[in-house]
Amino acid sequence: MSVLVVGSTALDSIRTPTAENPKLLGGSASHAAVAASFFSPVKLVGVVGHDFPKKYVQLYTKHGIDLTGLQMKEGKTFHWSGEYEVNMDNRRTLLTELGVFETFTPHLPEDYKKAAFVLLANIAPSLQAHVLDQMKKPKFVVADTMDLWLNIALKDLVALLKRVDGFVLNESEAHQLTKCSNVLDALKAIHKMGPKYVIIKKGHNGSMLSSPKGLFIAPAYPLKKVVDPTGAGDSFVGGIMGYLATAKGSVDNNLRRAMIYGTVVASFCCEGFGLNRTTRVTRAQILSRVKELENLARF
Amino acid sequence: MSVLVVGSTALDSIRTPTAENPKLLGGSASHAAVAASFFSPVKLVGVVGHDFPKKYVQLYTKHGIDLTGLQMKEGKTFHWSGEYEVNMDNRRTLLTELGVFETFTPHLPEDYKKAAFVLLANIAPSLQAHVLDQMKKPKFVVADTMDLWLNIALKDLVALLKRVDGFVLNESEAHQLTKCSNVLDALKAIHKMGPKYVIIKKGHNGSMLSSPKGLFIAPAYPLKKVVDPTGAGDSFVGGIMGYLATAKGSVDNNLRRAMIYGTVVASFCCEGFGLNRTTRVTRAQILSRVKELENLARF
Repeated sequence: MSVLVVGSTALDSIRTPTAENPKLLGGSASHAAVAASFFSPVKLVGVVGHDFPKKYVQLYTKHGIDLTGLQMKEGKTFHWSGEYEVNMDNRRTLLTELGVFETFTPHLPEDYKKAAFVLLANIAPSLQAHVLDQMKKPKFVVADTMDLWLNIALKDLVALLKRVDGFVLNESEAHQLTKCSNVLDALKAIHKMGPKYVIIKKGHNGSMLSSPKGLFIAPAYPLKKVVDPTGAGDSFVGGIMGYLATAKGSVDNNLRRAMIYGTVVASFCCEGFGLNRTTRVTRAQILSRVKELENLARF
Repeated sequence: MSVLVVGSTALDSIRTPTAENPKLLGGSASHAAVAASFFSPVKLVGVVGHDFPKKYVQLYTKHGIDLTGLQMKEGKTFHWSGEYEVNMDNRRTLLTELGVFETFTPHLPEDYKKAAFVLLANIAPSLQAHVLDQMKKPKFVVADTMDLWLNIALKDLVALLKRVDGFVLNESEAHQLTKCSNVLDALKAIHKMGPKYVIIKKGHNGSMLSSPKGLFIAPAYPLKKVVDPTGAGDSFVGGIMGYLATAKGSVDNNLRRAMIYGTVVASFCCEGFGLNRTTRVTRAQILSRVKELENLARF
Protein backbone atom coordinates (compact mmCIF):
# COMPACT_ATOMS: atom_id res chain seq x y z
CA MET A 1 0.00 0.00 0.00
CA SER A 2 1.12 3.55 -0.57
CA VAL A 3 2.00 6.26 1.92
CA LEU A 4 0.81 9.81 1.49
CA VAL A 5 3.31 12.25 2.95
CA VAL A 6 2.53 15.91 3.53
CA GLY A 7 4.99 18.32 5.07
CA SER A 8 7.54 20.93 4.18
CA THR A 9 9.62 20.74 1.01
CA ALA A 10 12.49 23.10 1.51
CA LEU A 11 16.00 24.22 0.82
CA ASP A 12 18.19 23.84 3.90
CA SER A 13 21.44 25.70 4.46
CA ILE A 14 23.25 23.89 7.23
CA ARG A 15 26.33 24.91 9.14
CA THR A 16 28.21 22.56 11.48
CA PRO A 17 31.49 23.19 13.31
CA THR A 18 33.35 21.60 10.40
CA ALA A 19 31.38 22.40 7.25
CA GLU A 20 28.79 24.58 5.55
CA ASN A 21 26.30 23.35 2.97
CA PRO A 22 24.00 25.82 1.26
CA LYS A 23 20.56 25.01 -0.18
CA LEU A 24 20.42 21.26 0.24
CA LEU A 25 17.17 19.43 -0.42
CA GLY A 26 15.38 19.46 2.92
CA GLY A 27 12.07 19.75 4.71
CA SER A 28 10.11 17.25 6.73
CA ALA A 29 8.24 15.83 3.73
CA SER A 30 11.42 15.38 1.68
CA HIS A 31 13.17 13.40 4.41
CA ALA A 32 10.06 11.39 5.32
CA ALA A 33 9.16 10.62 1.71
CA VAL A 34 12.63 9.38 0.78
CA ALA A 35 12.76 7.27 3.96
CA ALA A 36 9.34 5.72 3.27
CA SER A 37 10.27 5.07 -0.37
CA PHE A 38 12.68 2.29 0.64
CA PHE A 39 9.66 0.20 1.59
CA SER A 40 6.52 1.48 -0.15
CA PRO A 41 5.24 3.70 -2.96
CA VAL A 42 5.02 7.30 -1.76
CA LYS A 43 2.76 10.20 -2.76
CA LEU A 44 4.18 13.61 -1.85
CA VAL A 45 2.17 16.72 -1.02
CA GLY A 46 4.04 19.99 -0.78
CA VAL A 47 4.96 23.23 -2.47
CA VAL A 48 8.15 24.56 -4.07
CA GLY A 49 9.05 27.80 -5.85
CA HIS A 50 10.49 28.57 -9.26
CA ASP A 51 14.01 28.37 -7.80
CA PHE A 52 13.63 24.69 -6.82
CA PRO A 53 16.50 22.87 -8.56
CA LYS A 54 15.59 20.29 -11.20
CA LYS A 55 18.11 17.89 -9.70
CA TYR A 56 15.99 17.73 -6.54
CA VAL A 57 12.90 16.87 -8.58
CA GLN A 58 15.00 14.13 -10.18
CA LEU A 59 16.04 12.92 -6.73
CA TYR A 60 12.38 12.48 -5.69
CA THR A 61 11.70 10.74 -9.00
CA LYS A 62 14.65 8.42 -8.59
CA HIS A 63 12.96 7.21 -5.39
CA GLY A 64 9.72 6.58 -7.26
CA ILE A 65 7.95 9.34 -5.34
CA ASP A 66 4.68 10.44 -6.92
CA LEU A 67 4.89 14.23 -7.38
CA THR A 68 1.36 14.87 -8.68
CA GLY A 69 0.64 16.59 -5.36
CA LEU A 70 3.76 18.76 -5.37
CA GLN A 71 2.71 22.29 -6.29
CA MET A 72 5.16 24.45 -8.26
CA LYS A 73 4.48 28.15 -7.58
CA GLU A 74 5.89 31.48 -8.62
CA GLY A 75 8.10 32.69 -5.78
CA LYS A 76 10.87 31.28 -3.67
CA THR A 77 11.08 27.83 -2.11
CA PHE A 78 10.91 27.69 1.69
CA HIS A 79 14.48 28.27 2.88
CA TRP A 80 15.72 27.32 6.34
CA SER A 81 19.19 27.91 7.65
CA GLY A 82 20.58 26.50 10.88
CA GLU A 83 23.79 25.95 12.78
CA TYR A 84 24.81 23.02 14.99
CA GLU A 85 27.07 23.15 18.01
CA VAL A 86 30.00 20.76 18.49
CA ASN A 87 27.89 18.14 20.32
CA MET A 88 25.46 18.05 17.35
CA ASP A 89 22.54 18.05 19.77
CA ASN A 90 21.95 21.76 20.06
CA ARG A 91 21.12 23.80 17.00
CA ARG A 92 19.92 27.31 16.37
CA THR A 93 17.95 28.69 13.48
CA LEU A 94 19.80 31.39 11.57
CA LEU A 95 17.14 32.18 9.00
CA THR A 96 13.61 31.17 7.98
CA GLU A 97 12.27 32.42 4.64
CA LEU A 98 8.80 30.95 4.13
CA GLY A 99 8.53 31.94 0.45
CA VAL A 100 5.75 30.04 -1.36
CA PHE A 101 5.10 28.11 1.85
CA GLU A 102 3.45 31.18 3.36
CA THR A 103 0.31 30.74 1.28
CA PHE A 104 0.47 26.96 0.92
CA THR A 105 -2.82 25.08 0.93
CA PRO A 106 -2.43 21.37 0.32
CA HIS A 107 -4.74 20.11 -2.45
CA LEU A 108 -4.85 16.37 -2.88
CA PRO A 109 -5.05 14.87 -6.36
CA GLU A 110 -8.00 12.47 -6.61
CA ASP A 111 -5.97 9.25 -6.38
CA TYR A 112 -4.06 10.53 -3.31
CA LYS A 113 -7.29 10.64 -1.31
CA LYS A 114 -7.50 6.87 -1.12
CA ALA A 115 -4.00 6.32 0.28
CA ALA A 116 -4.16 3.86 3.19
CA PHE A 117 -1.27 5.31 5.20
CA VAL A 118 -1.07 9.02 5.85
CA LEU A 119 1.96 10.71 7.32
CA LEU A 120 1.32 14.26 8.44
CA ALA A 121 4.98 15.21 8.66
CA ASN A 122 5.97 18.34 10.53
CA ILE A 123 4.09 21.42 9.27
CA ALA A 124 1.43 23.66 10.84
CA PRO A 125 -1.30 21.50 12.42
CA SER A 126 -3.98 23.44 10.47
CA LEU A 127 -2.40 22.27 7.21
CA GLN A 128 -2.12 18.72 8.55
CA ALA A 129 -5.85 18.89 9.37
CA HIS A 130 -6.63 20.26 5.92
CA VAL A 131 -5.04 17.18 4.35
CA LEU A 132 -7.00 14.88 6.64
CA ASP A 133 -10.23 16.65 5.63
CA GLN A 134 -9.66 15.49 2.05
CA MET A 135 -8.83 11.85 2.81
CA LYS A 136 -11.29 9.01 2.22
CA LYS A 137 -11.09 6.55 5.11
CA PRO A 138 -7.33 6.16 5.52
CA LYS A 139 -6.25 3.05 7.40
CA PHE A 140 -3.59 4.63 9.60
CA VAL A 141 -2.81 8.30 10.17
CA VAL A 142 0.29 9.52 12.00
CA ALA A 143 1.20 13.12 12.82
CA ASP A 144 4.63 14.47 13.62
CA THR A 145 5.18 17.93 15.10
CA MET A 146 7.75 20.33 16.56
CA ASP A 147 8.01 22.70 19.51
CA LEU A 148 7.11 25.68 17.29
CA TRP A 149 3.51 24.43 16.94
CA LEU A 150 3.22 23.80 20.66
CA ASN A 151 4.18 27.44 21.14
CA ILE A 152 2.11 29.14 18.43
CA ALA A 153 -0.62 26.68 17.34
CA LEU A 154 -1.40 24.56 20.38
CA LYS A 155 -5.18 24.73 19.89
CA ASP A 156 -4.90 23.45 16.30
CA LEU A 157 -2.54 20.71 17.39
CA VAL A 158 -4.84 19.53 20.20
CA ALA A 159 -7.76 19.49 17.74
CA LEU A 160 -5.70 17.45 15.28
CA LEU A 161 -4.70 14.88 17.91
CA LYS A 162 -8.34 13.79 18.23
CA ARG A 163 -8.23 12.71 14.58
CA VAL A 164 -4.97 10.74 14.30
CA ASP A 165 -4.06 7.16 15.16
CA GLY A 166 -0.45 7.87 15.98
CA PHE A 167 1.51 10.87 17.21
CA VAL A 168 5.26 11.34 17.17
CA LEU A 169 7.09 13.96 19.20
CA ASN A 170 10.33 14.36 21.03
CA GLU A 171 10.89 14.01 24.75
CA SER A 172 10.99 17.69 25.66
CA GLU A 173 7.88 18.34 23.55
CA ALA A 174 6.05 15.54 25.39
CA HIS A 175 6.85 17.22 28.70
CA GLN A 176 5.92 20.66 27.35
CA LEU A 177 2.60 19.46 25.89
CA THR A 178 1.45 17.59 29.00
CA LYS A 179 3.20 19.47 31.83
CA CYS A 180 4.18 15.99 33.13
CA SER A 181 7.82 15.51 34.15
CA ASN A 182 7.47 11.71 34.23
CA VAL A 183 7.43 10.16 30.77
CA LEU A 184 4.81 7.52 31.66
CA ASP A 185 2.47 10.25 32.93
CA ALA A 186 3.15 12.22 29.75
CA LEU A 187 2.30 9.22 27.55
CA LYS A 188 -0.93 8.63 29.46
CA ALA A 189 -1.90 12.28 29.07
CA ILE A 190 -1.21 12.20 25.32
CA HIS A 191 -3.31 9.05 24.86
CA LYS A 192 -6.18 10.91 26.52
CA MET A 193 -5.82 13.62 23.87
CA GLY A 194 -6.62 11.07 21.15
CA PRO A 195 -3.77 9.02 19.68
CA LYS A 196 -3.79 5.27 20.31
CA TYR A 197 -0.09 5.10 19.45
CA VAL A 198 2.42 7.58 20.86
CA ILE A 199 6.08 7.53 19.89
CA ILE A 200 8.61 9.62 21.79
CA LYS A 201 11.87 10.39 20.00
CA LYS A 202 14.95 10.65 22.19
CA GLY A 203 17.67 11.27 19.59
CA HIS A 204 20.82 9.27 20.33
CA ASN A 205 18.97 7.67 23.25
CA GLY A 206 16.53 5.88 20.97
CA SER A 207 12.76 6.05 21.10
CA MET A 208 9.77 4.78 23.00
CA LEU A 209 6.35 3.56 21.92
CA SER A 210 3.20 3.43 23.99
CA SER A 211 0.38 1.42 22.41
CA PRO A 212 -2.43 -1.00 23.31
CA LYS A 213 0.28 -3.68 23.34
CA GLY A 214 2.15 -1.80 26.07
CA LEU A 215 5.48 -0.02 26.07
CA PHE A 216 8.38 -0.61 23.73
CA ILE A 217 11.84 0.84 24.21
CA ALA A 218 13.84 1.02 20.99
CA PRO A 219 17.60 1.55 20.98
CA ALA A 220 19.24 4.12 18.74
CA TYR A 221 21.80 2.93 16.22
CA PRO A 222 25.19 4.00 17.63
CA LEU A 223 26.89 6.13 14.99
CA LYS A 224 30.65 6.46 14.54
CA LYS A 225 30.16 9.98 13.25
CA VAL A 226 27.19 12.34 13.12
CA VAL A 227 27.62 14.64 10.13
CA ASP A 228 24.22 16.39 10.17
CA PRO A 229 21.20 15.29 12.20
CA THR A 230 18.76 17.52 10.27
CA GLY A 231 15.81 15.42 9.15
CA ALA A 232 16.63 12.40 11.32
CA GLY A 233 13.26 12.59 13.07
CA ASP A 234 11.45 12.93 9.73
CA SER A 235 13.41 9.98 8.31
CA PHE A 236 12.51 7.96 11.42
CA VAL A 237 8.78 8.46 11.04
CA GLY A 238 9.00 8.13 7.24
CA GLY A 239 10.73 4.77 7.64
CA ILE A 240 8.10 3.67 10.14
CA MET A 241 5.22 4.51 7.80
CA GLY A 242 6.93 3.01 4.76
CA TYR A 243 7.55 -0.22 6.63
CA LEU A 244 4.00 -0.38 8.02
CA ALA A 245 2.43 0.16 4.60
CA THR A 246 4.28 -2.81 3.16
CA ALA A 247 4.29 -5.23 6.13
CA LYS A 248 1.71 -7.99 6.36
CA GLY A 249 -0.49 -8.14 9.45
CA SER A 250 -1.74 -5.53 11.88
CA VAL A 251 -0.11 -2.23 12.80
CA ASP A 252 -0.09 -3.48 16.40
CA ASN A 253 2.06 -6.43 15.40
CA ASN A 254 4.38 -4.52 13.07
CA LEU A 255 4.99 -1.25 14.87
CA ARG A 256 8.00 -2.36 16.92
CA ARG A 257 9.91 -3.58 13.89
CA ALA A 258 8.75 -0.54 11.94
CA MET A 259 10.44 1.64 14.58
CA ILE A 260 13.66 -0.34 14.19
CA TYR A 261 13.56 0.23 10.42
CA GLY A 262 12.81 3.91 11.01
CA THR A 263 15.74 4.08 13.43
CA VAL A 264 18.06 2.62 10.83
CA VAL A 265 17.00 5.01 8.05
CA ALA A 266 17.40 7.91 10.53
CA SER A 267 20.92 6.70 11.35
CA PHE A 268 21.89 6.92 7.68
CA CYS A 269 20.32 10.37 7.46
CA CYS A 270 22.71 11.61 10.18
CA GLU A 271 25.74 10.38 8.24
CA GLY A 272 25.52 12.98 5.49
CA PHE A 273 24.39 16.55 4.95
CA GLY A 274 20.73 16.90 4.08
CA LEU A 275 19.65 13.83 2.11
CA ASN A 276 23.14 13.14 0.71
CA ARG A 277 23.60 9.87 2.54
CA THR A 278 19.99 8.70 2.70
CA THR A 279 19.54 8.89 -1.05
CA ARG A 280 22.52 6.59 -1.58
CA VAL A 281 21.44 3.91 0.90
CA THR A 282 20.74 0.41 -0.40
CA ARG A 283 18.15 -2.03 0.86
CA ALA A 284 20.99 -4.39 1.84
CA GLN A 285 22.62 -1.69 3.98
CA ILE A 286 19.32 -1.11 5.78
CA LEU A 287 18.85 -4.81 6.47
CA SER A 288 22.42 -5.09 7.70
CA ARG A 289 21.90 -2.33 10.31
CA VAL A 290 18.59 -3.85 11.39
CA LYS A 291 20.50 -7.07 12.04
CA GLU A 292 23.14 -5.11 13.97
CA LEU A 293 20.44 -3.52 16.14
CA GLU A 294 19.01 -6.96 16.85
CA ASN A 295 22.43 -8.04 18.11
CA LEU A 296 22.95 -4.84 20.09
CA ALA A 297 19.67 -5.17 21.97
CA ARG A 298 19.58 -8.92 22.60
CA PHE A 299 19.94 -10.24 26.18
CA MET B 1 30.98 -17.17 44.68
CA SER B 2 31.16 -14.12 46.90
CA VAL B 3 31.51 -10.47 45.99
CA LEU B 4 33.84 -8.17 47.88
CA VAL B 5 32.50 -4.62 47.92
CA VAL B 6 34.57 -1.66 49.00
CA GLY B 7 33.29 1.89 48.93
CA SER B 8 31.73 4.53 51.13
CA THR B 9 29.46 3.68 54.04
CA ALA B 10 27.65 6.85 54.90
CA LEU B 11 24.70 8.68 56.32
CA ASP B 12 22.81 10.55 53.60
CA SER B 13 20.49 13.47 54.24
CA ILE B 14 18.40 13.88 51.13
CA ARG B 15 16.08 16.66 50.17
CA THR B 16 13.70 16.46 47.20
CA PRO B 17 11.04 18.97 46.12
CA THR B 18 8.47 17.01 48.14
CA ALA B 19 10.32 15.54 51.14
CA GLU B 20 13.33 15.62 53.42
CA ASN B 21 14.99 12.58 54.94
CA PRO B 22 17.86 13.01 57.38
CA LYS B 23 20.63 10.47 57.98
CA LEU B 24 19.49 7.55 55.88
CA LEU B 25 21.82 4.62 55.35
CA GLY B 26 23.81 5.54 52.25
CA GLY B 27 27.16 5.41 50.54
CA SER B 28 28.27 3.59 47.42
CA ALA B 29 29.25 0.41 49.28
CA SER B 30 25.94 0.22 51.16
CA HIS B 31 23.86 0.47 48.00
CA ALA B 32 26.12 -1.86 46.01
CA ALA B 33 26.37 -4.46 48.80
CA VAL B 34 22.62 -4.67 49.35
CA ALA B 35 22.04 -4.90 45.57
CA ALA B 36 24.61 -7.69 45.19
CA SER B 37 23.20 -9.54 48.21
CA PHE B 38 20.06 -10.51 46.26
CA PHE B 39 22.21 -12.87 44.22
CA SER B 40 25.45 -13.72 46.06
CA PRO B 41 27.16 -13.63 49.44
CA VAL B 42 28.74 -10.21 49.99
CA LYS B 43 31.77 -9.09 51.99
CA LEU B 44 31.74 -5.39 52.86
CA VAL B 45 34.79 -3.19 53.36
CA GLY B 46 34.22 0.26 54.80
CA VAL B 47 34.35 2.47 57.86
CA VAL B 48 31.70 3.96 60.14
CA GLY B 49 31.84 6.13 63.27
CA HIS B 50 30.46 5.71 66.75
CA ASP B 51 27.24 7.45 65.68
CA PHE B 52 26.40 4.77 63.12
CA PRO B 53 22.91 3.50 64.08
CA LYS B 54 22.62 -0.11 65.17
CA LYS B 55 19.57 -0.52 62.96
CA TYR B 56 21.77 0.04 59.92
CA VAL B 57 24.15 -2.69 61.07
CA GLN B 58 21.10 -4.90 61.41
CA LEU B 59 20.01 -3.97 57.90
CA TYR B 60 23.35 -5.14 56.47
CA THR B 61 23.08 -8.31 58.55
CA LYS B 62 19.54 -8.98 57.39
CA HIS B 63 20.98 -9.12 53.86
CA GLY B 64 23.61 -11.63 54.94
CA ILE B 65 26.40 -9.12 54.34
CA ASP B 66 29.70 -10.10 55.95
CA LEU B 67 30.79 -7.13 58.10
CA THR B 68 34.18 -8.45 59.25
CA GLY B 69 35.77 -5.79 57.03
CA LEU B 70 33.63 -2.93 58.29
CA GLN B 71 35.77 -0.82 60.61
CA MET B 72 34.07 0.91 63.55
CA LYS B 73 36.07 4.00 64.54
CA GLU B 74 35.82 6.76 67.11
CA GLY B 75 34.46 9.80 65.36
CA LYS B 76 31.58 10.60 63.07
CA THR B 77 30.30 8.57 60.14
CA PHE B 78 30.76 10.12 56.68
CA HIS B 79 27.75 12.40 56.20
CA TRP B 80 26.56 13.61 52.81
CA SER B 81 23.66 15.92 52.21
CA GLY B 82 22.15 16.74 48.85
CA GLU B 83 19.14 18.27 47.21
CA TYR B 84 17.34 17.23 44.00
CA GLU B 85 15.53 19.51 41.56
CA VAL B 86 12.02 18.79 40.32
CA ASN B 87 13.21 16.74 37.32
CA MET B 88 15.19 14.47 39.70
CA ASP B 89 18.13 14.52 37.29
CA ASN B 90 20.02 17.49 38.67
CA ARG B 91 21.24 17.48 42.24
CA ARG B 92 23.52 19.66 44.28
CA THR B 93 25.59 18.77 47.30
CA LEU B 94 24.64 20.77 50.37
CA LEU B 95 27.19 19.30 52.77
CA THR B 96 30.03 16.77 52.92
CA GLU B 97 31.43 15.80 56.34
CA LEU B 98 34.07 13.14 55.82
CA GLY B 99 34.35 12.19 59.50
CA VAL B 100 36.11 8.84 60.01
CA PHE B 101 36.32 8.48 56.24
CA GLU B 102 39.07 11.09 56.14
CA THR B 103 41.66 8.69 57.51
CA PHE B 104 40.15 5.47 56.14
CA THR B 105 42.55 2.78 54.99
CA PRO B 106 40.82 -0.39 53.88
CA HIS B 107 42.28 -3.50 55.56
CA LEU B 108 41.02 -6.80 54.23
CA PRO B 109 40.37 -9.67 56.62
CA GLU B 110 42.25 -12.79 55.50
CA ASP B 111 39.24 -14.60 54.01
CA TYR B 112 38.18 -11.48 52.05
CA LYS B 113 41.40 -11.64 50.04
CA LYS B 114 40.31 -14.72 48.14
CA ALA B 115 36.97 -13.27 46.95
CA ALA B 116 36.51 -14.03 43.25
CA PHE B 117 34.52 -10.92 42.37
CA VAL B 118 35.70 -7.51 43.49
CA LEU B 119 33.61 -4.39 43.22
CA LEU B 120 35.56 -1.21 43.79
CA ALA B 121 32.50 0.96 44.33
CA ASN B 122 32.84 4.72 44.18
CA ILE B 123 35.58 6.00 46.52
CA ALA B 124 38.99 7.60 45.93
CA PRO B 125 40.91 5.58 43.31
CA SER B 126 43.90 5.35 45.68
CA LEU B 127 41.72 3.47 48.17
CA GLN B 128 40.34 1.27 45.41
CA ALA B 129 43.95 0.46 44.45
CA HIS B 130 44.86 -0.26 48.05
CA VAL B 131 42.13 -2.92 48.17
CA LEU B 132 43.36 -4.45 44.92
CA ASP B 133 46.91 -4.61 46.36
CA GLN B 134 45.64 -6.98 49.05
CA MET B 135 43.65 -9.32 46.80
CA LYS B 136 44.87 -12.77 45.83
CA LYS B 137 44.09 -13.38 42.16
CA PRO B 138 40.49 -12.21 41.94
CA LYS B 139 38.55 -13.52 38.95
CA PHE B 140 36.83 -10.30 37.96
CA VAL B 141 37.45 -6.76 39.18
CA VAL B 142 35.17 -3.84 38.38
CA ALA B 143 35.67 -0.21 39.37
CA ASP B 144 33.01 2.48 39.56
CA THR B 145 33.85 6.17 39.87
CA MET B 146 32.43 9.70 39.89
CA ASP B 147 33.29 13.07 38.36
CA LEU B 148 35.00 14.19 41.60
CA TRP B 149 37.87 11.73 41.03
CA LEU B 150 38.24 12.80 37.42
CA ASN B 151 38.68 16.32 38.73
CA ILE B 152 40.97 15.76 41.73
CA ALA B 153 42.55 12.30 41.34
CA LEU B 154 42.78 11.66 37.61
CA LYS B 155 46.32 10.25 37.80
CA ASP B 156 45.29 7.68 40.43
CA LEU B 157 42.22 6.75 38.42
CA VAL B 158 44.20 6.25 35.21
CA ALA B 159 46.68 4.06 37.11
CA LEU B 160 43.83 2.01 38.55
CA LEU B 161 42.23 1.46 35.14
CA LYS B 162 45.26 -0.57 34.04
CA ARG B 163 44.44 -3.06 36.80
CA VAL B 164 40.70 -3.65 36.42
CA ASP B 165 38.65 -5.87 34.12
CA GLY B 166 35.62 -3.63 34.05
CA PHE B 167 34.97 0.06 34.47
CA VAL B 168 31.63 1.75 35.06
CA LEU B 169 31.04 5.45 34.59
CA ASN B 170 28.31 7.76 33.44
CA GLU B 171 28.00 9.36 30.03
CA SER B 172 29.30 12.82 30.90
CA GLU B 173 32.23 11.28 32.79
CA ALA B 174 33.12 9.20 29.73
CA HIS B 175 33.24 12.35 27.62
CA GLN B 176 35.21 14.22 30.31
CA LEU B 177 37.74 11.40 30.75
CA THR B 178 38.43 10.86 27.06
CA LYS B 179 37.70 14.31 25.55
CA CYS B 180 35.70 12.40 22.92
CA SER B 181 32.23 13.75 22.10
CA ASN B 182 31.22 10.56 20.27
CA VAL B 183 30.39 7.71 22.64
CA LEU B 184 31.98 5.03 20.42
CA ASP B 185 35.23 7.00 20.33
CA ALA B 186 35.03 7.41 24.11
CA LEU B 187 34.55 3.67 24.62
CA LYS B 188 37.52 2.91 22.37
CA ALA B 189 39.69 5.37 24.29
CA ILE B 190 38.70 3.86 27.65
CA HIS B 191 39.48 0.32 26.45
CA LYS B 192 42.95 1.60 25.56
CA MET B 193 43.37 2.73 29.16
CA GLY B 194 42.96 -0.86 30.36
CA PRO B 195 39.46 -2.20 30.98
CA LYS B 196 38.20 -4.98 28.74
CA TYR B 197 34.61 -4.21 29.73
CA VAL B 198 33.27 -0.66 29.82
CA ILE B 199 29.78 0.16 30.98
CA ILE B 200 28.33 3.62 30.47
CA LYS B 201 25.41 4.59 32.69
CA LYS B 202 22.82 6.88 31.13
CA GLY B 203 20.27 7.19 33.95
CA HIS B 204 16.69 6.98 32.68
CA ASN B 205 18.10 6.35 29.20
CA GLY B 206 19.55 2.99 30.19
CA SER B 207 23.13 1.85 29.82
CA MET B 208 25.65 0.63 27.29
CA LEU B 209 28.30 -2.08 27.41
CA SER B 210 31.37 -2.37 25.23
CA SER B 211 33.13 -5.71 25.48
CA PRO B 212 34.98 -8.28 23.36
CA LYS B 213 31.52 -9.49 22.33
CA GLY B 214 30.69 -6.07 20.94
CA LEU B 215 28.21 -3.44 22.02
CA PHE B 216 25.10 -3.96 24.09
CA ILE B 217 22.43 -1.32 24.61
CA ALA B 218 20.34 -1.93 27.74
CA PRO B 219 17.03 -0.18 28.31
CA ALA B 220 16.21 1.49 31.62
CA TYR B 221 13.18 0.29 33.54
CA PRO B 222 10.51 2.99 33.07
CA LEU B 223 9.46 4.16 36.52
CA LYS B 224 6.04 5.53 37.39
CA LYS B 225 7.62 7.67 40.09
CA VAL B 226 11.19 8.49 41.02
CA VAL B 227 11.35 9.18 44.75
CA ASP B 228 15.12 9.42 45.22
CA PRO B 229 17.73 8.37 42.64
CA THR B 230 20.62 8.46 45.15
CA GLY B 231 22.52 5.18 44.94
CA ALA B 232 20.90 4.00 41.72
CA GLY B 233 24.26 3.75 39.95
CA ASP B 234 25.76 1.88 42.92
CA SER B 235 22.78 -0.48 42.99
CA PHE B 236 23.17 -1.05 39.26
CA VAL B 237 26.80 -2.13 39.50
CA GLY B 238 26.14 -4.05 42.72
CA GLY B 239 23.36 -5.99 41.01
CA ILE B 240 25.65 -6.70 38.06
CA MET B 241 28.42 -8.10 40.27
CA GLY B 242 26.03 -10.11 42.45
CA TYR B 243 24.48 -11.67 39.36
CA LEU B 244 27.86 -12.43 37.75
CA ALA B 245 29.19 -14.08 40.90
CA THR B 246 26.31 -16.50 40.98
CA ALA B 247 25.71 -17.14 37.25
CA LYS B 248 27.14 -20.22 35.57
CA GLY B 249 29.42 -19.71 32.59
CA SER B 250 31.72 -16.91 31.49
CA VAL B 251 31.45 -13.24 32.31
CA ASP B 252 31.30 -12.62 28.56
CA ASN B 253 28.17 -14.71 28.28
CA ASN B 254 26.49 -13.40 31.41
CA LEU B 255 27.23 -9.68 31.37
CA ARG B 256 24.22 -8.60 29.31
CA ARG B 257 21.74 -10.31 31.59
CA ALA B 258 23.72 -9.11 34.61
CA MET B 259 23.15 -5.53 33.40
CA ILE B 260 19.42 -6.18 33.13
CA TYR B 261 19.38 -7.46 36.73
CA GLY B 262 21.42 -4.44 37.80
CA THR B 263 18.98 -2.17 35.98
CA VAL B 264 16.07 -3.72 37.84
CA VAL B 265 17.66 -3.39 41.29
CA ALA B 266 18.53 0.23 40.45
CA SER B 267 14.90 0.85 39.49
CA PHE B 268 13.75 -0.29 42.93
CA CYS B 269 16.41 1.89 44.53
CA CYS B 270 14.85 4.98 42.90
CA GLU B 271 11.43 4.18 44.33
CA GLY B 272 12.31 4.95 47.92
CA PHE B 273 14.56 7.23 49.92
CA GLY B 274 18.03 5.83 50.53
CA LEU B 275 17.76 2.06 50.79
CA ASN B 276 14.15 2.10 52.03
CA ARG B 277 12.71 0.42 48.96
CA THR B 278 15.69 -1.75 47.97
CA THR B 279 15.85 -3.45 51.35
CA ARG B 280 12.21 -4.51 51.03
CA VAL B 281 12.49 -5.98 47.54
CA THR B 282 11.80 -9.67 47.03
CA ARG B 283 13.46 -12.01 44.58
CA ALA B 284 10.06 -12.50 42.90
CA GLN B 285 9.68 -8.75 42.36
CA ILE B 286 13.13 -8.62 40.75
CA LEU B 287 12.32 -11.50 38.41
CA SER B 288 9.01 -9.91 37.50
CA ARG B 289 10.69 -6.66 36.40
CA VAL B 290 13.35 -8.57 34.47
CA LYS B 291 10.48 -10.24 32.59
CA GLU B 292 8.89 -6.84 32.01
CA LEU B 293 12.15 -5.50 30.56
CA GLU B 294 12.34 -8.49 28.24
CA ASN B 295 8.89 -7.61 26.91
CA LEU B 296 9.70 -3.90 26.68
CA ALA B 297 12.80 -4.48 24.58
CA ARG B 298 11.63 -7.30 22.32
CA PHE B 299 11.13 -6.61 18.58
